[in-house]
Amino acid sequence: MEQTTPTLEELHQLIEMTNTLNMEIFYWWCTALMILIHAGFLSYEIGASRLKNALAAGVKNILAFGFVVPSVFLVGWAIYNGFPDGLVPRMDDLVAALPWSEAMGPNIQDNATGIFWGAFALFAATTGSILSGAIIERARMSAFIILTIALGGVLWLLAASWGWHPEGWLTVNWGYHDVGAAGVVHMVAGFFALAVVMNLGARIGRFNKDGSVNQIVGHSMPMSVVGLMLIIVGFFGFLGGCIIYNSGAQWINIYGQPTTLSAFAFNTLMGFAGGLIGAYLTTREPFWMMSGGLVGIISVAPGLDLYHPGLAYLIGMGVAAAAPLVNNFLLKMRLDDAVGAFAVHGFGGFAGLVISGIFLAGYPNVNGMADISFTGQVFGAIVMASLGFIPGYAISYGLKKVGMLRVPAHAEERGLDLTEVPAQAYPEWAAMYGTSTTLTGTDGTTETTTLIVETKPA
Amino acid sequence: MEQTTPTLEELHQLIEMTNTLNMEIFYWWCTALMILIHAGFLSYEIGASRLKNALAAGVKNILAFGFVVPSVFLVGWAIYNGFPDGLVPRMDDLVAALPWSEAMGPNIQDNATGIFWGAFALFAATTGSILSGAIIERARMSAFIILTIALGGVLWLLAASWGWHPEGWLTVNWGYHDVGAAGVVHMVAGFFALAVVMNLGARIGRFNKDGSVNQIVGHSMPMSVVGLMLIIVGFFGFLGGCIIYNSGAQWINIYGQPTTLSAFAFNTLMGFAGGLIGAYLTTREPFWMMSGGLVGIISVAPGLDLYHPGLAYLIGMGVAAAAPLVNNFLLKMRLDDAVGAFAVHGFGGFAGLVISGIFLAGYPNVNGMADISFTGQVFGAIVMASLGFIPGYAISYGLKKVGMLRVPAHAEERGLDLTEVPAQAYPEWAAMYGTSTTLTGTDGTTETTTLIVETKPA
Amino acid sequence: MEQTTPTLEELHQLIEMTNTLNMEIFYWWCTALMILIHAGFLSYEIGASRLKNALAAGVKNILAFGFVVPSVFLVGWAIYNGFPDGLVPRMDDLVAALPWSEAMGPNIQDNATGIFWGAFALFAATTGSILSGAIIERARMSAFIILTIALGGVLWLLAASWGWHPEGWLTVNWGYHDVGAAGVVHMVAGFFALAVVMNLGARIGRFNKDGSVNQIVGHSMPMSVVGLMLIIVGFFGFLGGCIIYNSGAQWINIYGQPTTLSAFAFNTLMGFAGGLIGAYLTTREPFWMMSGGLVGIISVAPGLDLYHPGLAYLIGMGVAAAAPLVNNFLLKMRLDDAVGAFAVHGFGGFAGLVISGIFLAGYPNVNGMADISFTGQVFGAIVMASLGFIPGYAISYGLKKVGMLRVPAHAEERGLDLTEVPAQAYPEWAAMYGTSTTLTGTDGTTETTTLIVETKPA
Repeated sequence: MEQTTPTLEELHQLIEMTNTLNMEIFYWWCTALMILIHAGFLSYEIGASRLKNALAAGVKNILAFGFVVPSVFLVGWAIYNGFPDGLVPRMDDLVAALPWSEAMGPNIQDNATGIFWGAFALFAATTGSILSGAIIERARMSAFIILTIALGGVLWLLAASWGWHPEGWLTVNWGYHDVGAAGVVHMVAGFFALAVVMNLGARIGRFNKDGSVNQIVGHSMPMSVVGLMLIIVGFFGFLGGCIIYNSGAQWINIYGQPTTLSAFAFNTLMGFAGGLIGAYLTTREPFWMMSGGLVGIISVAPGLDLYHPGLAYLIGMGVAAAAPLVNNFLLKMRLDDAVGAFAVHGFGGFAGLVISGIFLAGYPNVNGMADISFTGQVFGAIVMASLGFIPGYAISYGLKKVGMLRVPAHAEERGLDLTEVPAQAYPEWAAMYGTSTTLTGTDGTTETTTLIVETKPA
Repeated sequence: MEQTTPTLEELHQLIEMTNTLNMEIFYWWCTALMILIHAGFLSYEIGASRLKNALAAGVKNILAFGFVVPSVFLVGWAIYNGFPDGLVPRMDDLVAALPWSEAMGPNIQDNATGIFWGAFALFAATTGSILSGAIIERARMSAFIILTIALGGVLWLLAASWGWHPEGWLTVNWGYHDVGAAGVVHMVAGFFALAVVMNLGARIGRFNKDGSVNQIVGHSMPMSVVGLMLIIVGFFGFLGGCIIYNSGAQWINIYGQPTTLSAFAFNTLMGFAGGLIGAYLTTREPFWMMSGGLVGIISVAPGLDLYHPGLAYLIGMGVAAAAPLVNNFLLKMRLDDAVGAFAVHGFGGFAGLVISGIFLAGYPNVNGMADISFTGQVFGAIVMASLGFIPGYAISYGLKKVGMLRVPAHAEERGLDLTEVPAQAYPEWAAMYGTSTTLTGTDGTTETTTLIVETKPA
Repeated sequence: MEQTTPTLEELHQLIEMTNTLNMEIFYWWCTALMILIHAGFLSYEIGASRLKNALAAGVKNILAFGFVVPSVFLVGWAIYNGFPDGLVPRMDDLVAALPWSEAMGPNIQDNATGIFWGAFALFAATTGSILSGAIIERARMSAFIILTIALGGVLWLLAASWGWHPEGWLTVNWGYHDVGAAGVVHMVAGFFALAVVMNLGARIGRFNKDGSVNQIVGHSMPMSVVGLMLIIVGFFGFLGGCIIYNSGAQWINIYGQPTTLSAFAFNTLMGFAGGLIGAYLTTREPFWMMSGGLVGIISVAPGLDLYHPGLAYLIGMGVAAAAPLVNNFLLKMRLDDAVGAFAVHGFGGFAGLVISGIFLAGYPNVNGMADISFTGQVFGAIVMASLGFIPGYAISYGLKKVGMLRVPAHAEERGLDLTEVPAQAYPEWAAMYGTSTTLTGTDGTTETTTLIVETKPA
């Protein structure tokens, strides 16, 4: 390859192209690992469902991906690009991100749009998974699809445009600092889920008339905790998607401030470790420990670029210790969030933002934007909460009014798999699900279908 | 590190070396993620087996890796390098890729061969996994080893040499365009599996004398669907292995045409999402939904570099909606492909290639090779089908004739684990594989807590 | 971006910064994939526990992460940096790595420390997981925490400082060559685990008075084998963390010798494949096959940079074939290592080092360090064994003397989940944990084998 000596210009171009490819590769792997988040949520939510609802939980989680990704393609990406000023769109930016624009497809002049869009589509899928966990075992499929498109295809992108965009009004005016997307992803999804849970109501049997609470636990905690650990692996893709690769210059966060992946590594690992221990202190069980690890990462996400790792450990530990108590409080309020999605994502993000207001207040911003302040962080948190909660409440209320939100009680009691899914999760253990001793085929596609279950001789 | 100012030549070398490392790193991660494909297949195939065959399915899948990788080292890599012209080898290229050549081992003058070989070895492992799923629960271990070496160590590499090599005759003469390996990996393996299934015969009890079909379903659909989602994550490694990193220049596909990872990201995600929904429309169950997601990616794989993402969604959706029907058609033909491997990989790849012939016809090629054409794509698809089917049929027919293909009926009925594997999948549930009757709730941590255990009506 | 032509100095800086980011990205992904090792171990160890101990195994594995990571932050990183000369610290290097130093936190002048620390923290978590598997089902939580902090937060870092540091005394004086950390991670952890197992004692029911052995097998071998395959994926992160990225120059191993990722890819894949087949030859079951794959990688790890891939296959196959026999020997000695951790990591690493002494002897070192020699490799292996075994024995002996090492017999019999974890692994199957009171062994390898299935009291 060593022919003639290149000129300075040629070398410069060579380096620029090198960096373009490096940037593209980096976000390619971020996107891939974010699919591991989806795999983790799939395992986690199936495990957190009772046997009779196991497959229905999986179907909803998979459908979220199938609907959210095209929604981000059709409108979401345009929303992110078009609304940094609030509710009045920047029409040029918006139009340039619509499906028929040159950027939205294979284009050898553009090594960036597809890969950034991909990362955003996967962030959107994460919001869908946060929602799908909270409402397992009684939400109607059609309602879930509408809700997840609203959340993943529209709302989180508006949140990102406001608080996670180089020129978002929350940062320009309020100094809002949320490098790891604690507000724009986790709070929006967590508060949306809470609002839906309020309208959806608790699962049958969850609460007694005297106010006491019955446990309803998933059929496989091992599936759930392994799934949660896969989510953590995937978070390295998620957080990688929160840092901006510059051509031959230092990393910057989404707000243009210099940072490093090293800083992210320190604080992600320490926040995660602290969260595991924090939730252990208050629960001693692995489902909440792993959820606590997630809380740990979310709670330090706003300041991943700035915290001392020791502080990240303590923040993660403290917020994660509190998260199960928040979930218990919800239970007292007779709110049945099946996997603690609000406590983990909504509360975790909220606490993280408020705490960041204490520790990061006064840190300067670039490009003339407001400094980080306690007020700005709290205000930003309130905006994120509202952006999730209000539309979530409104849409789910509307669905409830037209009778579309929840499956009928008899279907819930028999289990959603029986109504919604022409398959069984564990057919050979079916006889042990309960009373029935004989099994007959339940596929129903042809009358002659018989389910073959062989038994192993003793 | 900043000593004296380097010369232009020195800087140029610095950049070239930088790019060499970047390239090597990129394919290193591709290889790593392709092992996740293997992990996913392992989970998927174990879950798709009945309890009595669960471990035997795992053993076969693991053995495939153990035999295919050295086969690619011993002969496969030489086949790929030696046969781009058809069946007459280019002896120099072939010999340079044999195990004793300088390139085939640690060599600090060569940062490429090992990493490319690694990616090819993992593609080979994928073909082995495609086969192993189709023939679970009745194939003999020894037969499987022979078949998987033939497929993964020889045939897919010949296919790649013909249709997935910068100078492969299918591209040079026919303009064959298959950037994501829909033909050279998926079709070859899918048609090979189909041929083996034809000789192997159906599992006992699969078909009734009146032509009706009995369901035989795996013992854990959750394991299968989570495994399938892991396969999707791994596909980002697979597809990364389908694009060529150039030193400081734009990406090219395997045929030398410029492309971007951004294009791959757009179309992979949209094809996947479309596939999930497509299969949902025709099946409503998660095993086929996730299989459909895979079909979605495979069906857009030939044109990942060229499709509009909206088109990719529609292609993925359409082909994935059809795949379960193809599997039903196989059942009508009394062909028992246990996991739908032909429908997913064989049919998915075939449909993808034919469709690409419609949408990509006329697209120019480089280096004087024929343009993409409908005829070329269909012809290429037929070649790939034949290259899988004919040897697969011949070898499995031979194995059948000497009585090596299938386990004895009594061993199949008792389950392969009992004969082949000195261990049990779930020993503590062993007594329950077939007996007990009633369930009572038992949580008991607080007095007011009641464990809700719902039973599924018969 | 193409404004004025840059100068040579500016271009040089651009390239250097490019390489700094590339380096940081590479280790970021290494760290992420090493969390997949932790996910894999979690699945593997839960699956290898009986139902009554499934969650307790998970809790211990998760706690290891929560405690080891901050330990490496507080003291471990300083130990690694401070003790390359043996037991007399280099105070400057040690102090520069303490938590309050400038390097140990976000610092935009330092794109390296956080990411290297992260990789080391994850190596530490791996040592914790190796230990936690060996002692499942009877170790006390508090004892485990103390032991895992000692191993993961202190001992392995001392080992690394001695034998896996550019100036470690084992390399400088003895030419110790262990590029893939077979000694410094696997042997230290494996021998530490063996020592603890000696003091901890066997699980109740494991051995009979006549010297015969009862099988005690985990509740889900599928969970274990899929977990092991995830560990293999993660090993690409682990091994990536064993190679040093240079700015625009060839890779070097930890000892400063040039190498390539291509060499690593060749030998990792071939060692793994050989290990799968080796263990198949002696066991024919998937738990040991996958463990054998791990042994294959560990056994070639010392010479990943130098072996011919064919040799790597043979070494992996041979050592992995022997590993199950080593575990059987331990059983004869009445040592109950529940998952074969010593056989895989301790023996695998030891055999790998000794074999490397045969094949690599005479290979020159750089910077005036001693050449690789058989004596040096064996001596290094003995040092690593001692560094794991002696403190492991001493600490566990002390814990035993004060009655902290092991849970009471009645708690062990009832299962640790009942005492330690306020949750159930599979609540809907709870009633079936106990319907059958006796089970008879069905393994059939020895007549005296009895399958132990304990029931959980109502």
